[in-house]
Amino acid sequence: MPYQPPVREHLFLLREVLQIDRFAALPGFQDASLDVVEQILTEAAKFCGEVLAPLNAVGDKEGCVWRPDNTVETPPGFKEAYRAFVAGGWPALGAGAEYGGQGLPYVVSLAFSEMSSAANMAFAMYPGLTHGAYSAILAAGSPEQKALYLPKLASGEWGGTMNLTEPQCGTDLGLIRTKAVPAGDGSYRISGEKIWISSGEHDLTENIVHLVLARTPDAPAGVRGISLFLAPKFLPDADGKPGPRNAVKCAGIEEKMGIHGSATCVIVHEGSTGWLVGEENKGLAAMFVMMNEERLGVGMQGLAQGEAAYQAAAAFAKERLQGRSLTGPKNPDGPADPILVHPDVRRMLMDSRAILEAGRAFLFWTALQGDLSHAHPDAAVRERAQDYMALLTPVLKAYLTDRGFKICSDAMQVHGGSGFTEHFPVSQYLRDCRISMIYEGTNGVQALDLVGRKLPASGGRAMRSFLAEIDAFVGANQGEAALRPFTEGLAAAKGQLQEATLWLMQNGLSAPDNAAAASSDYLHLFGLTGLAYMWALIAKAAGAKMAGGETDPFYANKLIVGRYFLQRVLPDAGACLAKLKTGAEPVMALPAEAF
Amino acid sequence: MPYQPPVREHLFLLREVLQIDRFAALPGFQDASLDVVEQILTEAAKFCGEVLAPLNAVGDKEGCVWRPDNTVETPPGFKEAYRAFVAGGWPALGAGAEYGGQGLPYVVSLAFSEMSSAANMAFAMYPGLTHGAYSAILAAGSPEQKALYLPKLASGEWGGTMNLTEPQCGTDLGLIRTKAVPAGDGSYRISGEKIWISSGEHDLTENIVHLVLARTPDAPAGVRGISLFLAPKFLPDADGKPGPRNAVKCAGIEEKMGIHGSATCVIVHEGSTGWLVGEENKGLAAMFVMMNEERLGVGMQGLAQGEAAYQAAAAFAKERLQGRSLTGPKNPDGPADPILVHPDVRRMLMDSRAILEAGRAFLFWTALQGDLSHAHPDAAVRERAQDYMALLTPVLKAYLTDRGFKICSDAMQVHGGSGFTEHFPVSQYLRDCRISMIYEGTNGVQALDLVGRKLPASGGRAMRSFLAEIDAFVGANQGEAALRPFTEGLAAAKGQLQEATLWLMQNGLSAPDNAAAASSDYLHLFGLTGLAYMWALIAKAAGAKMAGGETDPFYANKLIVGRYFLQRVLPDAGACLAKLKTGAEPVMALPAEAF
Repeated sequence: MPYQPPVREHLFLLREVLQIDRFAALPGFQDASLDVVEQILTEAAKFCGEVLAPLNAVGDKEGCVWRPDNTVETPPGFKEAYRAFVAGGWPALGAGAEYGGQGLPYVVSLAFSEMSSAANMAFAMYPGLTHGAYSAILAAGSPEQKALYLPKLASGEWGGTMNLTEPQCGTDLGLIRTKAVPAGDGSYRISGEKIWISSGEHDLTENIVHLVLARTPDAPAGVRGISLFLAPKFLPDADGKPGPRNAVKCAGIEEKMGIHGSATCVIVHEGSTGWLVGEENKGLAAMFVMMNEERLGVGMQGLAQGEAAYQAAAAFAKERLQGRSLTGPKNPDGPADPILVHPDVRRMLMDSRAILEAGRAFLFWTALQGDLSHAHPDAAVRERAQDYMALLTPVLKAYLTDRGFKICSDAMQVHGGSGFTEHFPVSQYLRDCRISMIYEGTNGVQALDLVGRKLPASGGRAMRSFLAEIDAFVGANQGEAALRPFTEGLAAAKGQLQEATLWLMQNGLSAPDNAAAASSDYLHLFGLTGLAYMWALIAKAAGAKMAGGETDPFYANKLIVGRYFLQRVLPDAGACLAKLKTGAEPVMALPAEAF
Repeated sequence: MPYQPPVREHLFLLREVLQIDRFAALPGFQDASLDVVEQILTEAAKFCGEVLAPLNAVGDKEGCVWRPDNTVETPPGFKEAYRAFVAGGWPALGAGAEYGGQGLPYVVSLAFSEMSSAANMAFAMYPGLTHGAYSAILAAGSPEQKALYLPKLASGEWGGTMNLTEPQCGTDLGLIRTKAVPAGDGSYRISGEKIWISSGEHDLTENIVHLVLARTPDAPAGVRGISLFLAPKFLPDADGKPGPRNAVKCAGIEEKMGIHGSATCVIVHEGSTGWLVGEENKGLAAMFVMMNEERLGVGMQGLAQGEAAYQAAAAFAKERLQGRSLTGPKNPDGPADPILVHPDVRRMLMDSRAILEAGRAFLFWTALQGDLSHAHPDAAVRERAQDYMALLTPVLKAYLTDRGFKICSDAMQVHGGSGFTEHFPVSQYLRDCRISMIYEGTNGVQALDLVGRKLPASGGRAMRSFLAEIDAFVGANQGEAALRPFTEGLAAAKGQLQEATLWLMQNGLSAPDNAAAASSDYLHLFGLTGLAYMWALIAKAAGAKMAGGETDPFYANKLIVGRYFLQRVLPDAGACLAKLKTGAEPVMALPAEAF
């Protein structure tokens, strides 16, 4: 069975859990009534299911091809699909109306991104990177840069990239060597080699806008000497049309375990012409604007591959006949029962559901904070929303990609030997998904960002708000008998997260190795607590429908999956807490030469 | 850095932890003094490191090639390496002297298998399957079959396979359709299609001996109507040389996520000539002889890929310069510190070490039980050893492959973006390792075998022995202050395993869905407890050396890694127990149509 975008899940979250119609008066939401959103997502599901999903295996098998003339050919069908993608207006969903976009809320455009990523992750990376470039120019570009580039990026006519990594520096951007020398006319000449540049070269768009981190001649060493430049593949002429070829080329593409349809390029700047974006030596800050949204998007990719893999596994489990139920035949007229009857198969599928449904809620809930942080009239709400967005981005990026990969692996396990062959889609989901744990900052870097930067920011304000919000929810709802397992589970998880936070404050400030050694387990404990909160919100929304007489089993099933989460997933929280409280000593005790 | 077989680890286990010289008087051990074993393993390490490891990436890249004449070409270099493998006598290590083998203990031949698997898993599968065929014929074949086939298989001149799976049946062998019709001359004519047959066709040996599950014309339905047949690719002539071609052919090979150098074949029997092995309708029992050893070998494969991946990650972490230690620069003259200074990188490497070192001990400890079950003069020791081997095989198969895959994934994470490219070896380790969780019975099937068959066998005798052995160890050693964390951790884990076992007895017998729903968590709790026992044994052995004045840090480091296990890995045991005790209800509550 091919991937089916879960529109019903999306609408349930937007309508009943997040109730986005509460914000109908806010900019962006005015044109996004629930009916309009339903129409858009239904159309989107059709496009992703019918156009993008069938190209997924093709992209994996054929991959991108690099030619000695430094061009890159995308897999068969990608060009036509991209043309349809642009014609349908899909790149412009989230872009501002002033640049030709549709100005929809981020939470709605993220729902679309989930569908396109699940249908074809490699394809979806091209517009994903373009959107990142759009955001960086929007945040830091000059009015002229915005006017020239943003409409082209919003429409998808031009593509965008992020030129960060160099052979000697990935995580540690302070080591960047690429040089940018003023040309005297306001432009710069950029020289250096960038690696792992997604969408760095391809045949989908008439131009590609590279955003490049480089150093000016007198820049200080380290991260304080990095500036951001814009260097298009073709220099725009006076009419804003692609003019002369810039001195930037693709010297090769990587052979990778997955996302074969996404061109991962070596990009060489040989005195390319570029323009400063924002202020000199403030490049990293400008780039991080783009990185934050990208990181939430990567968390979404982990979820999306998990969803696609889960769907494939569930379909397989209903079709594959093997063995008999231990409680008596369920398909007595067939040669065997479908393997869905076996508890251990159910366990893997239920684990996946418990994470996917609440993980999506957590992602959407946080994306909505992103919207509120711009659009809400109340400064206090904006501040809190901004706090949440910053705090939760690393949690969602790392937790959802770790769990997404596990879901892909479980989906392969449900398939048995079939899953290991390339005749079934799940090997590709697993291989594609794996990169999401690594790029845009490895999950270990996310954990460090969480404990080292996001937690202590503004005196811990964001975390205090989050814990207080959970307390308030529990306080307001603990009287509801039907919700009790959810409020109790949430209160317990929140207590463990609070204990871990206190431990970090007491042990991590004076000895930062303690915080770093605890960071990954802390992040997972945070993820589990966030999901416990989401399950409580989902249970409340579903319970309200049922109390109103709704008999659609969709709602009762939410409570079943939620209870599974509490009983079968949440117990990991205690192990996270126990591990992290052992601190850095056991982690660092072995001498370096013993590795 | 290429893979280095860990000979020192092997010798430490054999000499100081298992003290195999205690058994020097037993058959098999007489020719395996520790000095001889050291010589053999040192030579083996040289062969695996210098001949097999360099072909690993070649095998992955080039894969096997199927030709329309139904032949299969192995990757470049495999034929020459196989010739050297046979010339070195490596296939014969574990085979009996009466068939030309060296008759070494299983625990020693398993040490060699770990090295060859880690160096080149796909290559090592060819002799691995041959060894399985050898074991099945040894257990169930007629004297004539043994005389004709065993010497050829022991020497590696001929290869062997297991023809079990058919398109409609993997786990559920009762659904087998392949037919075997008596030809009137004592032979049978076999017809049917077998899939996923590892080593089913290749160019390494002059003959291939297929062991085939099939049904005779009047066989009862289900698993009680399956017989085992032997159908060689070339029918032996009067001199035992390969004669006429048999009517069995390879109709294709699978495209797979990994182990590309191993030919996974569709094998079609078109009235092939075969001979019954053992009794009619008792084929499954004969095949299971072969399966049990194979399963322990698959657990070893998971460990082996994990070891190779860990080595690659540790080497990368010592070389890659990125960022600075939070406690001050450790490489002040360089542009950055090696990433080994970062606690979260250490965490992944230490997790891996904590599992690998004790996992290998558990594997060797169990393989030694296999030896004692045959060779020990005391019937009570033989019985207990047989019990342990049966009880622990599913635990080791599933636990070590689950953890081996996690270690490969962590090794990729340590590599960052480099790990996702195919220029580094870790993608192959991860892709190759993944099949070990699936074949020879998925890990879910292992868990069911454990709770449904192995635990209740002989009134739970095996489990009682195992728990009593741990109690005895704790009782004898709890007075030793230096060992206290280990005896306490072990006692706590054993308490949780015992509680889980009791829960299974009280809740699983009357409602088998409860046992099945609990099985995977129970198996993981068992694996953790087994490793806690091994760490206690290792700590005792290392502590004894240190008390004797030994100053080599090798021994002190064992205690450091062991303490890490107790503090950072063992807390998962509590989560396993909490989850499994929720039983089948949450797992099975969702209606089938909701998936």
